[in-house]
Amino acid sequence: MNYPSGIKKQMTHTVNYSHRGMTLEEDLNQTNLYYREHDIAYIYKKPTPIKITKVVFNAQKSATIKEAFFMEPSTTDYNGIYKGYYIDFEAKETKNKTSFPLANIHPHQLQHLKHILAQGGIGFIIVRFTTLQKTFLLNGEQLFSFLNNSTSKSIPLSYFLEQGWQLTEKFSPRLDYLKIIDHILEVNKNEKSKEKHD
Amino acid sequence: MNYPSGIKKQMTHTVNYSHRGMTLEEDLNQTNLYYREHDIAYIYKKPTPIKITKVVFNAQKSATIKEAFFMEPSTTDYNGIYKGYYIDFEAKETKNKTSFPLANIHPHQLQHLKHILAQGGIGFIIVRFTTLQKTFLLNGEQLFSFLNNSTSKSIPLSYFLEQGWQLTEKFSPRLDYLKIIDHILEVNKNEKSKEKHD
Repeated sequence: MNYPSGIKKQMTHTVNYSHRGMTLEEDLNQTNLYYREHDIAYIYKKPTPIKITKVVFNAQKSATIKEAFFMEPSTTDYNGIYKGYYIDFEAKETKNKTSFPLANIHPHQLQHLKHILAQGGIGFIIVRFTTLQKTFLLNGEQLFSFLNNSTSKSIPLSYFLEQGWQLTEKFSPRLDYLKIIDHILEVNKNEKSKEKHD
Repeated sequence: MNYPSGIKKQMTHTVNYSHRGMTLEEDLNQTNLYYREHDIAYIYKKPTPIKITKVVFNAQKSATIKEAFFMEPSTTDYNGIYKGYYIDFEAKETKNKTSFPLANIHPHQLQHLKHILAQGGIGFIIVRFTTLQKTFLLNGEQLFSFLNNSTSKSIPLSYFLEQGWQLTEKFSPRLDYLKIIDHILEVNKNEKSKEKHD
């Protein structure tokens, strides 16, 4: 199993100092912390799934893992609750300048997002083009609209520009993605009430 | 940091064969798999949080963790979506025959459940008294009603019998806890519509 992107960087302490030194994961962790501290939403990054094969049990109920391996995640990395809604998303960085290679997302993660939408949850991806220093939120409906109508192995930047929402970094919260979700919820509500009146 | 309950059992392969050999965690994992396979709900156990301190990077993008430590979980172990509702719970076993010691749940896990309820999510605990071979679901409202009105360091079995829901094991799904959630949702709906008409 491949190790998660970011782990090598983390382990070797060669931090990327572009983008004010923050990776997308760090930005999202800070943003989610801000949301929690302000009682706005409770959204967490799931721990990296690991298969433990060797543990040494020490005195006083502590233990050291001596051998373990990274496992493929079966779901997306982030989930939680916002205004009663179930929130679920995957966040990815790419160095590519013109498109987001779909190989970055596991097929079962896409499958998971599809199930979430069908259950009435809010599912999306956040993609950062690190070289361009641009970050986008692409809502699940638009993501699957692309996947269902294309055989391409990557989503072009132009699709993010047309169908996605660009997230601009602020001091705090770093990446206010729930603002976009508010907008999407508002649009959905208006469409529903329009359907009722038609 | 203490290691998670179950890890020692798992590592030393001394499986508990009472209760048809299944731990509460195994029962819940099977139940959640059943829910997913039948497109009923998408609820997962979160991976155990681990602090990795030593990794060896092998050829072909694989890696072996050579030193890591168990971390305290900041949230509950299980969450997901059911009929559009955000679901969040903690599951614990106790050998105690008369009460469930609250020391089994971290204070910040209780805090997390409280936030989930306030955000409109469905939060609860599932507790198995292994010696008695009895498993209960205690809904968040009843859990906090107890905690707010008692200084006791454990919840007596009698409280689970009076205020909780006993879960009986079946072949498949093993522990159909969403049946209880259906009932709770129904009661909440009726109370709301009663309020409207009062």
